[in-house]
Formats: sequence, C-alpha cells, structure tokens
Amino acid sequence: MIKVGIVGGTGYTGVELLRLLAVHPDVDVQVVTSRAEKGLRVDSVYPNLRGFNDLCFVEPIVKNLLGCGVVFFATPNATAMHMAKELLDAGIKVIDLSADFRLKDVIVWEQWYGAKHVCPELLGEAVYGLPETNRQAIKSAMLVANPGCYPTATQLGFLPLLKNNCIDTSMLISDAKSGVSGAGRSASVVGLMSESGESFKAYGVPGHRHLPEITQELQNESNTPVSLTFTPHLVPMIRGIHATLYARLEDTNTDLQTLFEDFYKDEPFVDVLPAGMHPDTGDVRGSNRCQIAVHQPQGGNVVTVLSVIDNLVKGASGQAIHNMNIMFDLDETSGLNHVGLYP
Amino acid sequence: MIKVGIVGGTGYTGVELLRLLAVHPDVDVQVVTSRAEKGLRVDSVYPNLRGFNDLCFVEPIVKNLLGCGVVFFATPNATAMHMAKELLDAGIKVIDLSADFRLKDVIVWEQWYGAKHVCPELLGEAVYGLPETNRQAIKSAMLVANPGCYPTATQLGFLPLLKNNCIDTSMLISDAKSGVSGAGRSASVVGLMSESGESFKAYGVPGHRHLPEITQELQNESNTPVSLTFTPHLVPMIRGIHATLYARLEDTNTDLQTLFEDFYKDEPFVDVLPAGMHPDTGDVRGSNRCQIAVHQPQGGNVVTVLSVIDNLVKGASGQAIHNMNIMFDLDETSGLNHVGLYP
Amino acid sequence: MIKVGIVGGTGYTGVELLRLLAVHPDVDVQVVTSRAEKGLRVDSVYPNLRGFNDLCFVEPIVKNLLGCGVVFFATPNATAMHMAKELLDAGIKVIDLSADFRLKDVIVWEQWYGAKHVCPELLGEAVYGLPETNRQAIKSAMLVANPGCYPTATQLGFLPLLKNNCIDTSMLISDAKSGVSGAGRSASVVGLMSESGESFKAYGVPGHRHLPEITQELQNESNTPVSLTFTPHLVPMIRGIHATLYARLEDTNTDLQTLFEDFYKDEPFVDVLPAGMHPDTGDVRGSNRCQIAVHQPQGGNVVTVLSVIDNLVKGASGQAIHNMNIMFDLDETSGLNHVGLYP
Amino acid sequence: MIKVGIVGGTGYTGVELLRLLAVHPDVDVQVVTSRAEKGLRVDSVYPNLRGFNDLCFVEPIVKNLLGCGVVFFATPNATAMHMAKELLDAGIKVIDLSADFRLKDVIVWEQWYGAKHVCPELLGEAVYGLPETNRQAIKSAMLVANPGCYPTATQLGFLPLLKNNCIDTSMLISDAKSGVSGAGRSASVVGLMSESGESFKAYGVPGHRHLPEITQELQNESNTPVSLTFTPHLVPMIRGIHATLYARLEDTNTDLQTLFEDFYKDEPFVDVLPAGMHPDTGDVRGSNRCQIAVHQPQGGNVVTVLSVIDNLVKGASGQAIHNMNIMFDLDETSGLNHVGLYP
Repeated sequence: MIKVGIVGGTGYTGVELLRLLAVHPDVDVQVVTSRAEKGLRVDSVYPNLRGFNDLCFVEPIVKNLLGCGVVFFATPNATAMHMAKELLDAGIKVIDLSADFRLKDVIVWEQWYGAKHVCPELLGEAVYGLPETNRQAIKSAMLVANPGCYPTATQLGFLPLLKNNCIDTSMLISDAKSGVSGAGRSASVVGLMSESGESFKAYGVPGHRHLPEITQELQNESNTPVSLTFTPHLVPMIRGIHATLYARLEDTNTDLQTLFEDFYKDEPFVDVLPAGMHPDTGDVRGSNRCQIAVHQPQGGNVVTVLSVIDNLVKGASGQAIHNMNIMFDLDETSGLNHVGLYP
Repeated sequence: MIKVGIVGGTGYTGVELLRLLAVHPDVDVQVVTSRAEKGLRVDSVYPNLRGFNDLCFVEPIVKNLLGCGVVFFATPNATAMHMAKELLDAGIKVIDLSADFRLKDVIVWEQWYGAKHVCPELLGEAVYGLPETNRQAIKSAMLVANPGCYPTATQLGFLPLLKNNCIDTSMLISDAKSGVSGAGRSASVVGLMSESGESFKAYGVPGHRHLPEITQELQNESNTPVSLTFTPHLVPMIRGIHATLYARLEDTNTDLQTLFEDFYKDEPFVDVLPAGMHPDTGDVRGSNRCQIAVHQPQGGNVVTVLSVIDNLVKGASGQAIHNMNIMFDLDETSGLNHVGLYP
Repeated sequence: MIKVGIVGGTGYTGVELLRLLAVHPDVDVQVVTSRAEKGLRVDSVYPNLRGFNDLCFVEPIVKNLLGCGVVFFATPNATAMHMAKELLDAGIKVIDLSADFRLKDVIVWEQWYGAKHVCPELLGEAVYGLPETNRQAIKSAMLVANPGCYPTATQLGFLPLLKNNCIDTSMLISDAKSGVSGAGRSASVVGLMSESGESFKAYGVPGHRHLPEITQELQNESNTPVSLTFTPHLVPMIRGIHATLYARLEDTNTDLQTLFEDFYKDEPFVDVLPAGMHPDTGDVRGSNRCQIAVHQPQGGNVVTVLSVIDNLVKGASGQAIHNMNIMFDLDETSGLNHVGLYP
Repeated sequence: MIKVGIVGGTGYTGVELLRLLAVHPDVDVQVVTSRAEKGLRVDSVYPNLRGFNDLCFVEPIVKNLLGCGVVFFATPNATAMHMAKELLDAGIKVIDLSADFRLKDVIVWEQWYGAKHVCPELLGEAVYGLPETNRQAIKSAMLVANPGCYPTATQLGFLPLLKNNCIDTSMLISDAKSGVSGAGRSASVVGLMSESGESFKAYGVPGHRHLPEITQELQNESNTPVSLTFTPHLVPMIRGIHATLYARLEDTNTDLQTLFEDFYKDEPFVDVLPAGMHPDTGDVRGSNRCQIAVHQPQGGNVVTVLSVIDNLVKGASGQAIHNMNIMFDLDETSGLNHVGLYP
C-alpha cells in the first residue's frame, strides 16, 4: 500500500483526492493537513466522507509527512514550493496540483503569479503531468506538476491537430467555460450563488494565468510558435469544463475524425466521440475522462474541437492520481474507474 | 456472476442501475430492454457508459430475459405486473422499482394508480424491499417491491420514533422535497429547466401516490393507526430528497440522539449525524446512504427529523441493488461503496 | 418628489431598493451610503443600474442624510439602532429593513441577536410594517420595522386561520424554504454556489431569529398563545420563499377557500389562488406579490397552506416601499406594479 | 391606445410580450391566441399575469385579429407566413418574432428551415427589425422580421468593427451561449432540467439556422463577404445570451473602446461598458439592454468582443416592442424602461 499525504485537505481538490483515494485499492491515506482545521476530524468538515476516513487534520509541516511515499499538494499557488525540496530530499515523491512547477521559465512564472519563486532550480526537474504527452517522463519523476484544468481540456483538444501539422498556429482560439468549483472553496462575494447562479460571464479576458501554461506546452509539443487567444467563462454549474477550440485548417480534406481516433486509441482517459456528436460535461461528471468531438462546419477551413472534462477530476485530482499510478507502476486506471454521474 | 436483466433501460432508474452495476464485482448485465430504442447501442444513448457497456437495447419480452438470474424493472407503473408472473414461474427473481407490488391492498392500489391490477395474487408474496425493516424476508424473496423514494426517506426518519412509541401518531407530517430527476426522463413541459429551474413549489398536496405506501408501512411497523400529512415539493436541483418530519413527542425527556444511533448502529446505509447537525443532500449525491439528524427545537414537545437520500440511489436503484445483494447472499455493500460526490 | 436616502446600499436589499425606486414616479433617491465603497459610483458596483442612477456612495453618517424625507436602512442587524434616533429627531421618517425594531421585548431581542440594544425606548413607538395587519398604524408612523422575509410569508398564510379561530394554536408548523439571496451579499463559504447549488438542507433547526418575530406577531394578532415550530431550509435558487404551513383544524367543515379569499379581497399584494392550485415562487419573482393556496388534504383535520413571495421584494425591499407609500399617502401600488418575471 | 394582438400566446416569447405590454402605457392587448388553450383564461396558464390580464385565449384565425392595429407572431417557424398577407392586406401591421421573414433569399430559407415558403413575395418588403441598423426602414414598415436572439447579440458586437473596416472578415467567430428558455416551451427530453441542469454542451456545430441570418446581415451592413463560424452552446440557466466574438484586427493601434462608445452613443438599448469590464447576463435579466465590452488581449492582433442580452427581451419580445414603438412613432423606450433583475 502506498502511504499518501495530502497537504491542503480543505479545498475542493483536496476533498476530491480524499473521495477518489477512499476507494483506491493500492493506497492508504495517512496524513491530511490543514492549518485552519487542525485537530478536527476530516469527516466533520466533509460529511460525505463519514465511514471512509477517520483521520484528523494535522499541521502542514514536513515532519508530519515524512512517513509518506507520496505527497499531494492541493494548496493555493506559492505554497508547495516552500515544502517540496525538503520532501524530495527525504525521498518522498511530490505531486503538486497547484501551479508552482508548471512553467519552465521562472521569469514568466513570477510575472504571472506575482511572487518570488523560492526554488527555481526544481523547475527543470519537474515533469509536467499530462500523461497523454509525458507518460515516460512521469514514470521516473520525483516531482510532478499536475496540469491546470483549462490547460488539460485545451491541450487534449489541440494536440492531435498540432502534432499532425494540420492547423495554422498563428491564430488559435480556446473559448473555455468552467463550473464554479474551479474558483475553489474560499469565502468570496463573486462565488456566491446569488452572484454566479443564473448568469454567465467571461473573466480574465486581458490575461489569465493558464495562458502561458497552455502556450508553453503547445509550443513544446508542436515545436512551433503558437499564438493563442484564451477566454475563460464562468458557468452556473458546479463541475465541468467545456473548451471550444478554433483554428484554421491547412488542408480541408484531412479526415479529422480518424486522425483524432488514432491519436487517442490507446489512451484510457480520452474518449473521442463518434462523428457529429457534441460532448456534454454532464457525461464526465465525477469521472477522470475527457470526451472530445471534432467538427469541420460546412466542410470549411475552420476546425472546431469540443473537449469536456470534470475540472476536479481529469482537470485536477483524478489526473494527479493517474500520475501517481504511473509513478508507482500501478495499473493506470486503478481507483479511477468511475462512470460519469448522469443525470 | 449473477446474470442481470434490466427492463426499461432508458429512464433514470434504468441508467442508474447501469452506472452502479457497471462496477459491481459480482454482476454481469446481460440484457437491457427498451421498446423505443431497440437495436441502438446503450452507450449511444448514454455516453457516460462508453467503455463500460457494449450492449444494445432489445425488445422487452420475457423470452429475452430467460437466461437471467434476476430481472430489475425500471419501468413506469403498471408495466412490471404484466411480465412478473412469467419470470417468477421460470425461476427468475424479480426486483420491481415501480409501484406495482408495493401496496398489499389491491383496492387501494387500483384507486391510487388508476388501473386494473393484473396479478393481485402476487401482492401477498411480494416483499417490501426496505432492508432496514425487512431484511429477513428479502433474503428468501423471489419478488421484491422496491420502495418509493419519498417513502424511503420518510420511513427511515420516523421508524426509530414509532418502534419506540415516542410519538403521537395522530398527526405526523412529512414535508418532503425532491430534485427533478424524481419526475423521470419523459418529455414534459413542467420538467423543462425553464419551468423548474430557479423556482420552488409544492405539488400533489391533495393526495400523492406515496401517501398510501408510507402509511401502510408505518402502520405495519408500529402496529398503530397512523395519520400522515405528506407534502411533496420540487427543488431546482437534479438529485436528492430531503424529508423534514414532524411529530408531537409523548415524552420530552427521551434521549432522541441515542435512540436513533442505537436503532441504526448496524445498518450499513443509514448514518445518524452527530447532535446538532443538518444533513445536506449534496453529501449523499451518487451514494446509497441515508443521512439523518434528529432535533427537538427548544427542548419542546415537537420532534423534527431531517432525512436525506439520493432519490436515484437509496431512493431507487441503489436500494434495488442492496436488495439483490441480500437475495443472493452477497456482502450487502458490494458495488455500493460510493463516496458522495461533493461538491 | 420624496427625497430618499438608503443606508447600506451594497447588500441585496439595498440594490433591490435602488432597482425598484429607479422607476418609482414619486421618488428621488438622493443619498446612497456604503462605508466600504465610499466614493465609487453606484453603477460601477451594480452595472444593472447603469443609466438609472448616477450617484456615488457616501459615508453612512447622519449629516449626509439630513436632506431626506425618508431613510431606508438596508443594513445588517444592530446598525440602524445607532442612527435612527437622530434621524427621527430631525423629522426624518425611518424604515428599517433589518431586525432592530421588530421585537417589542428588548430582553428577547438581546437574547436572539446577541447584542445590547442602544435605543430600547424606540421599540414601543416602532410600527411593525406588515401592511395587511397594521395599515392604520403605518400611515402615521415615523419609524417602521419592516418584517423579515420568513415572517412575512408565514404570517400571511396563518392570519386568515388565526383571525377566524380555525386552528389549534398549540402545534403550528412553518416549514419554510428560501433562495440563497436571503443570506445576503457577504463573502462566505456556505454561500458559494459550489456549496449551495445542487443541494438542499435545513438550517437553524434548534432556533432561528425569525421564530420570536413570527410568534410575537401571531400572538398579537390572535390574542392567543401560539406554539410554533419553524424550520428554514436553503433552496438552490436565488430568489423566492415558499412557506408550507400546517395546523390542526378546529372544524373540518369550514370553507377555507372562501375564508381566505374574503380575508384578502382588498389587499393589492396578496393573491389567493383558485382552489387546488399550488403557488410557484417563479411566478412572483421580482414582484411584490404574495400568492397563497389553502388545502385540506383528503378533507381531513389538517390544513396545509402554501405561501410564496420574492424574499427581496415582498419579503424586504418591495414591502418597505409599500410602507413608504402608505406613510406618504401615495397610491399603495405606486412603483410596485411589476409582473413576476416568468420564466 | 394601440390595439395589439398576439398570435401564439403560450410560448415564452408570447408570455414575455404579455409581461412587458401589461405595463406599457400606450398599448391595449386585445387578443391572445392559442389553439391548444382556446377558451382558457390567460392567467390560469400564467399565474404571474393574475391581475394584469383577464383575457381568454382564442382561436388563431385572422377574423379574431381584424380589430388590431398590430399583430405580433410569437409562433413556431413556418406559421406567420400563413397569416401575414391577409393581415397586411387588412392594413394591420405585423411583427414576426419567428424566422419566416428574416432571410431575403427564399432558397436559402427553404434549405435551412425545411419547408416551402408560402409568401416569398413578402420577403423583399419585410424589414429586418434590428433598430440599431434599420431604424428608418422600420418607421415605415408594415411587416417587421424581428431578429433572432443569437443574431442580435452577435451583430451588435461585430457591427462597430465591420462598419469601420477594422477586421479581417475571412475568419469571424461567434462562440455563443444561451440559457435554456431559448429552446422554447415545448415538451422535450433534452430540455428537462435533469438533462440541461448542471451541464454544459455545444449543439448545432455542423450548422445552425441562425448562421445564414447573421451572415446575411453582416454582409449587408459591411458590403463585404463574411466567413463566420458560429457555435451555439446551452447554459444551465433560464435567461440570457453571451456571445464571445473573435476576429483578427487590421490595425492593432485602433482605439477600440472609443470606437464602440461612439458607435452606440445614441442608442437607448446598447450599453458599452467601461474598458476592462466583463458583461454579465445577470445584469440584463428582464431588461431590453445589450451590454458590450471590447477587449484586445495583450494588445495583440485579435479583438475579443463580449456581448450579452436577455434572449427573451432584447433577443425577442423586448426588441419586438421596440420595433412597435418605432413603427407607431412612440418614445422608443416606452414600456421598456426596466432595470435588470439582479441578483
């Protein structure tokens, strides 16, 4: 049994790790930290875990985590970087669900995240944890930077096109929509249901932190400069991301359906829908699956890709567990075999 | 492996059976019927099942079900009664999620359901499938009448009080609220999100079909006449039932918290919350659990019980599988060990 | 034109006053205060008011309000009591939407609101602003205590029965459900859509502040001791309250439908629905109307009353304007003639 | 007083006309038709109208409408075309909220709407009722084709750019999101809250009927061929459309904010938000207003326009009344002076 520690157990990605790991056959969650809730039983804060977890929250300090084989950081940005080095030095694997190790260029990171990075030397060694592109590197990684939710949905939609040089990379568009759980579990006015229910709006149009992450990875994978316009929107629902992607096709005669199906044929968590379908976030709710459809409206020169995930699962905690499964040489789908909760 | 057939695979309780049974270790779903979708792949109608189920819908006729060990009816009322006898005669166990076999008195049934019952002789042999009260009878049953959703939440809340003679049964109130999936997956105007979203209303106040079912069972269990006022309401959410129950206490000094905890201490799917808490339907979403809290406001002579379930799981398909597990002498929790999908 | 000041313009009842008064023909809103947003344009915080309001928020001090004919307090509890006396002394009428002047007994107030009341001498002079019961007193009032949202819906449902001695007052039940805007516009975790969306729960079952308010008024109106069990619940929608009321009838032969219709026949904002109907909060969204239905299920001895309002209008700001109209001898419906926003 | 008839009074655009016209000072609604509800009181179907409307539905035949000065068609497509000619011949003005007269090319119409057009001779005379572009023609029109909801939001966002030749028209993208009321009030499975709540999906990606309408009008206004990719999505809310528009700028140095503000400075129902803001559909709920923001992310060569309306008001019934006001030389804002219902 892999001994697991979770730092930051009171946010949505933390409790989602607990939900998923509670029924993972190869894992024993031994430590859950929370500064604010220290001493409280985990299931007193999260009654859905009653009967599955009898731990109490402990202080988020390295000493409490030294018995673990792997530690997940489900913390706000600029937290994991303060503890990662010490854990790694102790031989403990680290999977960071925050953004601390996603960008390779520390200057870019500091500009977008507005903080001084305290261990830039780890940026090179950190592996970007998108299994569909980095499986081999993840296998041997000690430090995995788990991708953001929007970046996961966007990359999985663009990758088959980019890797096959099908599109003009000078004007890519990702019009992305997220449920409100993406904003986390912190008290706020904008997150109130009175504000975000029964309404729809864009945000961060001038610039969102996931833009440099997506751009970095698309460029890495395609070896081409990529110019991306990225627009996140807030949907009045709890879970789910839908990315609608646009690009100009280099050749309108490519069989895009076959191209996508071939590209993902061995991937356990990417499901290319039959031609003509439209994926629905509701079909992947609670599951680690990305469902994708590719369209070429009116046979024209624009390709429209529709890509959906559950932002808390494939967009965060499920993907983190997928990475753990790879790092520990388990069956990749171990503990992740959930059917989407429809309706 | 138990060979399972599902009649009526295109409603919400049908697809929920498929979701739950897809990961049940002791079951092999072999037949799924649908008159309307006959010939179509199940996962073309329900994309959440892609990769979990490669069956096609077949005609709902007895011949197609003869290889099964158990058949679930996830059909509208007045359907199962036409096929049940023939299946039972063939030695196949039947679990009916509809109301055809719930009432013992055929006259009452025909009055509330507006149809002629075609096999009243089975009403006596049918076992009312609430495991918390009828476990022994279910073990040896060939025909189980799976309880309604409101009746499950209401009975589990009242039972500890009734069985201990704590309340005046001349004025019981169940003010119950259900998510919209309880209305099923049939085209309708009232079920449109434009009608049922962002609004709240009662319905069926003059009389709802679950009233005679609840009354029958509460009277059976308490051996006392019971006068119940039952008010169902529609909540703008998809899954979940919250029953708020009221009764006058015979003795204001009873320790109700202990009474409830003792009553359910061995039940795997009923969870009595610590004193002072309020259960939330969101904590049991997707799980087969009933969470209950008991309150005695201001120490007065009225007891208020709060009881929540997922109407499609503990209120329908999960409870049906629990019944199957008991009938086939499996671990009762087999395939039902889901953590509630919070948030 | 009546010169209006609004103290606490950044909560939901404040912005709702601004929405309604923007099109009120007899009113000129001259002052809107907010400590936090002082100096900002009102319509920069509330873009729905662009073009209707060009004021800036000012400091909430008496000096800023001295030119007004009436001041509305749309503030948290325990705020209005600090400014009311000075305004009244200056001849300015005060309508308090908070709870500071609702309870007649200062000891009860201090117990439920956990604060020292700074001007208990005003409690006697304050008029409880439910027009349907206190119209005459409101006409000449200088200080109106605007009723709470739950108390409005509950009282309007029980009053016809109480005033006609139709029910046993020893066990009244108000099972009430509110949209999330009732919790106000303060940053919180429980108000997040991820917490309150797609879920339903009760709260405050051991005791809610609206209980003493409702009890006081029902007793005042009926001249009888009243024992009320009050259970508030949170509905995953923004606006609306539905109170489901239960009592035992003294006489099962009373014509309750006629009794209700007669009781409210002259009231502009209470609409008794035809027999057999179920009111829907969606039909009164944005309007100052209370819609009520009365049922006697199966002709038995329990009466079930269904009463719906928009908590921000008839349950708060609309009723406050109704009170203003009465105090200033305007047409009672002036500025309040809105059709419910369905769908 | 203008005598108004409404054909098709039981859909959402019909009841929205009734809501808005109930408080329009210059209008008297005299006839409301419905084949299905003939004989019923309008307010028995729509309780929000109780007290505002005492009409009964009548048969939708020309004879019933002959006393009207204007008739609104709030009917499914391919209905108005059967009655329009006779009404026009009788001197009655016609405003069609459906698509029957929106396209100038009958071949294109018949291809997208799958029906034979019965009065193609009226297509030339019909005026496309977008006041912001066609005010003069509307003034003297007898037959107005009221624009679709998506086309309204999309055109208002692109027009300032197109009319000023700011963008490359070879790749325009409208990624549009609509609340579920856009699908109308017909019984359906896909419209059930269990299907469309808590989920997000695109639909009609291969081709949606609003595509030729938008393209026709953008080309008319710009005198240039336009290649548009249009993707509609369904948002789990009732009212509101958000169009996110993308185009490549011809010149990255244009002051887009000033350009938009100047373009709409005299328009009563188009509100250009200050630089940097993001419009929210919740701010225009129930109002006839379009709120627009224009962004140029990172100062690059892509312009992103955000345009929101209430699909039932500015996207349908409100705009139809705006057209009526113009046709009858009333104040354009008469009856349309609603503040958005926030929250």
